[in-house]
Amino acid sequence: MRINNTTPKSDGFYMPSELAEHRCTYVLWPERGDNWRNNAENAQEVFKKVIQTIAKYEPVVVGVNPGQYPHVLEMNMPNVQVVEISNNDSWIRDCGATFVVNGRGNMRAVDWSFNAWGGLVNGLYFPWDQDDLVAAKMCAIEAVNRYRLSDFILEGGSIHSDGEGTILTTEECLLDEGRNANMTKEEIEAKLLEYLGAEKVLWIPKGIYMDEDTNGHVDNICQFVAPGKVVLAWEDNQDDPQYERSKAALDYLESQTDAKGRKIEVVKIHVPNPITITKEESEGVDIVEGTFPRREGDRLPASYVNYYNCNGAVILPVFDDEHDQAAIDTLQELFPDKVIEPIYAREILLGGGNIHCITQQVPRP
Amino acid sequence: MRINNTTPKSDGFYMPSELAEHRCTYVLWPERGDNWRNNAENAQEVFKKVIQTIAKYEPVVVGVNPGQYPHVLEMNMPNVQVVEISNNDSWIRDCGATFVVNGRGNMRAVDWSFNAWGGLVNGLYFPWDQDDLVAAKMCAIEAVNRYRLSDFILEGGSIHSDGEGTILTTEECLLDEGRNANMTKEEIEAKLLEYLGAEKVLWIPKGIYMDEDTNGHVDNICQFVAPGKVVLAWEDNQDDPQYERSKAALDYLESQTDAKGRKIEVVKIHVPNPITITKEESEGVDIVEGTFPRREGDRLPASYVNYYNCNGAVILPVFDDEHDQAAIDTLQELFPDKVIEPIYAREILLGGGNIHCITQQVPRP
Repeated sequence: MRINNTTPKSDGFYMPSELAEHRCTYVLWPERGDNWRNNAENAQEVFKKVIQTIAKYEPVVVGVNPGQYPHVLEMNMPNVQVVEISNNDSWIRDCGATFVVNGRGNMRAVDWSFNAWGGLVNGLYFPWDQDDLVAAKMCAIEAVNRYRLSDFILEGGSIHSDGEGTILTTEECLLDEGRNANMTKEEIEAKLLEYLGAEKVLWIPKGIYMDEDTNGHVDNICQFVAPGKVVLAWEDNQDDPQYERSKAALDYLESQTDAKGRKIEVVKIHVPNPITITKEESEGVDIVEGTFPRREGDRLPASYVNYYNCNGAVILPVFDDEHDQAAIDTLQELFPDKVIEPIYAREILLGGGNIHCITQQVPRP
Repeated sequence: MRINNTTPKSDGFYMPSELAEHRCTYVLWPERGDNWRNNAENAQEVFKKVIQTIAKYEPVVVGVNPGQYPHVLEMNMPNVQVVEISNNDSWIRDCGATFVVNGRGNMRAVDWSFNAWGGLVNGLYFPWDQDDLVAAKMCAIEAVNRYRLSDFILEGGSIHSDGEGTILTTEECLLDEGRNANMTKEEIEAKLLEYLGAEKVLWIPKGIYMDEDTNGHVDNICQFVAPGKVVLAWEDNQDDPQYERSKAALDYLESQTDAKGRKIEVVKIHVPNPITITKEESEGVDIVEGTFPRREGDRLPASYVNYYNCNGAVILPVFDDEHDQAAIDTLQELFPDKVIEPIYAREILLGGGNIHCITQQVPRP
């Protein structure tokens, strides 16, 4: 059911850290040929690998459009439930529900409005009506009540929570004119605090270079590894446009304290070398009026920070790049009790995001 | 997940009585204008009343096609979850999953093949592909594994279980040439026993007069009220074609014992006076090639026995008929601790069934 007239904060709910224990992970099945090359055949292989890898550690719920449903059902993957959830594309981190808990065994969810990363201003496609219903459908399946914000646009990939009162986001995304152009930064911050049950928002200036799809989502550049401690996508080469973005984030983070007054410890993870779209990759994408094009030579917003935390493992995108091993090693040091599961994820990157963007955790309240 | 190579019986599972405690009830939302008059507007009102009435007693999950989803979601009904389940029509008793339990807290489900009550022989519409996926989708939402029978056609409305080893069905339906024409009665009985975890099948000869849609489903003529005890749709008037059907059922039941060796006690519930389709009702149904017509003057298979047992209540179809009160009184005597909830259900009857046909219980294992 939809909850009216109260907020998560007023009801004692907050967004737990992604590192808190999960009941399951949701994924949406990709199929649109104007975003995923070769009618999504290549992407589906990698999504399947992500699903099966997570399913080794926790249940996975895969939402599928009606047309592809029988095909995905027939895969009969262990620890995977295949449900019908119509969608315009498969970025459940962004269109899905944000679950909140109250620390007393109860769970609810926030159902933000979704407008395909910018609506008619600079969104990626039209329409996005089915995406905007994904959160309600997740809530129905999980049987949790939801706070619906019909007047506030937000994607889950634009926020991280440490579960102890601090939210990470980027100015580049949340202040972009395609979302809540009628609101001030202070008003947007107030919404975040109220609906995520938090006390402080840390505003990193910008996301990853060329993350134009999402207008610089935080989940591609920075992620909590513990309260007061983050990983940051880094670039050593000062001539690369990524450098100034990473440096600005570092300077900002080192100047801040979190909601509990802790200084922020920053662990760098170097980004892969520049990855660009090949001619073959570009030509595999159907050209459709109004959909964001995937042009040969365009640089992709590749980053290891777009990994996903599930129970007992880190699902890490890798790129057959010289920096892969350092990312694996750094995360293994940060999470000595977790299995690091690298997955070659260029095909997800070609669609505009990575493993964190295609997953959404449901906490175990 | 789909379970291969075993059966409910071999795994220690059986179908509990509908009277055992439920976790919830599933309903599908009606919309097809070639079965429900006035583009299902009238039927939707009654379905909504059924949903809201059951939701007073236990959670209800409503499965909706993508197009009507936002509309039903917006109703924001208490204790009701609105999920996406594409369907060809809204008879979840027949196309939905049959849940089985093992008495040790575990639940699974049987996912029979569905062919719209007779397939290309005498089915009601084509295609039925979405109906046949409903059971799998219910299982995914409930996170239970399922036994899929790709080689055996059955509708849930053609069986009742007492939960103690005895199954009620009708020869008229299960031996009809539109379902499992390649199987003998003995082979069909063996399937029922194996997949419902039962010991004995009671074969009532025929269902309600003019129940041509379903070929005489048992759930319109007879239902367990306890192990060894049933209600039977009855007709006193020996000139009415219903009489010989009810009399044949009575004679058969009184000649039988159940799986535990009990004689069957029969309680009669008189059917309403003959109800026929009016000109206005017939004209409200869209004419579509290949869909079963609803003709003015056709007699409808009206019966009180098509009631639904939920936790704490009996949801009873009534018809503004002189026999309504006797049905209410009889059921109140049979279930002194339950609330009898009569709902004027002519609009569901016009579509070919009644309240039992549009509901499907999920046990609390």
